Amino acid sequence: MNHVLILGGDGYLGWPTAMYFSIRGHKVTVVDNYFRRNACKELDTGMLYPIPSLLERAKIWHKITGKEIKVIVGDLNEPDLMRGLFNGKITYNWSLNNNFTGIPETVVHYAEQPSAPYSLIDYKYADITLVNNLRVTNNLMWALRDYARETHVVKLGTMGEYGTPNIDIEEGWIEIEHKKRKDKFLFPRQGSSIYHTTKIMDTDLLWFGVRIWGLKVTDLMQGPVYGIETEETKIDESLNTIFNYDEVFGTVINRFIVQAVSGHPLTIYGKGGQTRGYLNIKDTLQCVYKSALSPAKAGELRIFNQIMETFSVKDLAKKIFNVGNKRDHNVKIDHLENPRKESESHYYNPVYQGLLNIGVKPNYLTDEVINSIFIIVEKHIKNIRKDVIFRGIKW
Amino acid sequence: MNHVLILGGDGYLGWPTAMYFSIRGHKVTVVDNYFRRNACKELDTGMLYPIPSLLERAKIWHKITGKEIKVIVGDLNEPDLMRGLFNGKITYNWSLNNNFTGIPETVVHYAEQPSAPYSLIDYKYADITLVNNLRVTNNLMWALRDYARETHVVKLGTMGEYGTPNIDIEEGWIEIEHKKRKDKFLFPRQGSSIYHTTKIMDTDLLWFGVRIWGLKVTDLMQGPVYGIETEETKIDESLNTIFNYDEVFGTVINRFIVQAVSGHPLTIYGKGGQTRGYLNIKDTLQCVYKSALSPAKAGELRIFNQIMETFSVKDLAKKIFNVGNKRDHNVKIDHLENPRKESESHYYNPVYQGLLNIGVKPNYLTDEVINSIFIIVEKHIKNIRKDVIFRGIKW
Repeated sequence: MNHVLILGGDGYLGWPTAMYFSIRGHKVTVVDNYFRRNACKELDTGMLYPIPSLLERAKIWHKITGKEIKVIVGDLNEPDLMRGLFNGKITYNWSLNNNFTGIPETVVHYAEQPSAPYSLIDYKYADITLVNNLRVTNNLMWALRDYARETHVVKLGTMGEYGTPNIDIEEGWIEIEHKKRKDKFLFPRQGSSIYHTTKIMDTDLLWFGVRIWGLKVTDLMQGPVYGIETEETKIDESLNTIFNYDEVFGTVINRFIVQAVSGHPLTIYGKGGQTRGYLNIKDTLQCVYKSALSPAKAGELRIFNQIMETFSVKDLAKKIFNVGNKRDHNVKIDHLENPRKESESHYYNPVYQGLLNIGVKPNYLTDEVINSIFIIVEKHIKNIRKDVIFRGIKW
Repeated sequence: MNHVLILGGDGYLGWPTAMYFSIRGHKVTVVDNYFRRNACKELDTGMLYPIPSLLERAKIWHKITGKEIKVIVGDLNEPDLMRGLFNGKITYNWSLNNNFTGIPETVVHYAEQPSAPYSLIDYKYADITLVNNLRVTNNLMWALRDYARETHVVKLGTMGEYGTPNIDIEEGWIEIEHKKRKDKFLFPRQGSSIYHTTKIMDTDLLWFGVRIWGLKVTDLMQGPVYGIETEETKIDESLNTIFNYDEVFGTVINRFIVQAVSGHPLTIYGKGGQTRGYLNIKDTLQCVYKSALSPAKAGELRIFNQIMETFSVKDLAKKIFNVGNKRDHNVKIDHLENPRKESESHYYNPVYQGLLNIGVKPNYLTDEVINSIFIIVEKHIKNIRKDVIFRGIKW
């Protein structure tokens, strides 16, 4: 694997992924339309610290490491832009030279609206989420069909697609025996937001492309990601990834730590028995990288459950409460009326073995890890806006 | 049930449905953006006979029967148009007076791009299908959420969502036992075209709305429809429904009869062992009507498999061959290389009992019924364009 194309390369995971591949010697192209940054501005979400533009990031990266990350700023809802990434009819917004790198061996597809609350603000945000997430995936699928059937797609799914069924959650597939006959199917899915539902849909779409045109897809069913640093962001502060702590784009562990530092009570929704699988941002990079190194076969939709351990929201709050209090924060916990329609206590037993089998070494949510996030958040305490931490988007 | 809103009220099924409700004393509003007519023009598909515009149809209907079918010509991709149908901010393109009829008790949702080959012409047609079918459904769902939670949606699905699994096809739902635990899920789905995949997606979307907001939805998993006449179209020729015989918008039985009449060989794809469930257009009207009379409950996604009998493509060709030859047509059968990626012989055992249970009385595909379609097609033989019967859209 030589050339990697990262769709949504400016995001919380996209930019660290770009650096991770680049530092390991791969040619990297990133594409982004600044959806996330613009949404943060529009919704006034606040950010823990400012970050340079994608072009500036790429230039800084080149200056520090000597490596090139080619940048395209543009909207992948436009089929012609997507197709240009495979047929060469493309202009880079930043690169050392404007030569087309060639067809990528791997596409990492992060170019989706990733927030459940965003998708439920009102009908307009639902529409934006639906149209963006489906069109980008469809444009990608057809570009692969028409120009690049050998290219492997590493696509981010979410554990939230499965919901919280009363049976064990397998890695994407299940054999069903019914009236003495058998067949194998995608594991049943029902998402708990419009966002999650679009992720079910994009899987259906790519599964069609895999079956009919022999495409190669790995679907990473990711749990909520936490953390702020990767080995590459540590090289220089200007390489930091975007960090949200609000209810729309912040993920729960990151939010809780910011709440603890700023003196805002930890916002548990309802009883807090909601159990999910979680992983460190460093593990997202490992999982994507290892998947890229051992691609799915032609006509294979390979699915991994990308979590390293499970916790209830109550468990998480307790962990952060303990570390926070040791660091002299006066941490409080608040049980808010649950703004989401979800079970607050339920069976949850997902399998997550496939990524370990291809060589991923988990980072766990130890007190030490939590402590290290606290240290960074504390450095930026002046930037925390308590007014944007909670806004009460309801399902 | 008093007021019925029909989305996609100009189509092959939409217009006859409007007349069916209207003649039975219900207030009817139809909305359509002429998608189908425009696509027929663009793709040069031919039609068996010309049909008046939707406004003309409504005026003719009023003149003949004294009944009013209110007409709105507009694009339901626009959320404000959809919302206007429920909040009253709407202007009718034709009605006896421009007064808002009020919130409909029933919405019949036909407003989707309904052709599998259309969705696979190329990436642009896939995009149109995806965006139209998902946005319209999403706009409908949010309008119901915001203004009309009591309204019952009768939504057209397709048996093609299930594909051809190696287990019996239940009516929408299946209980799965796995590792000694049980739960109930939507029956597994994998569509054999982009169109079919969008129908899986719109179900996922509405199932979200049903679970979270208590919406009432009936999903009619319809097989390919055949036929040309309903009791209402028979009232006057100018009330005929659109009839396509080409490969994009024509359904198989209708196409075969036109092929037989025009001397074109019946186009069987591959071996012809593809088995599906079929129904007469008159039964579509019955099924929709009976579903509307006994609505789904709040928070219920009720699913019926809307077919009356199953046939392989070979069986169908043979039936039409026999009737055609009796009518002195020199019918030939051609086994073309299958342009679709599908199994040409497979297990197929769907359940279809729910609609019978609510009072639907099936019309079957007898020689007499086939003969009656032949008679009408023969009347229009001069309009049949042999050049548009087959164009070879490949999957």
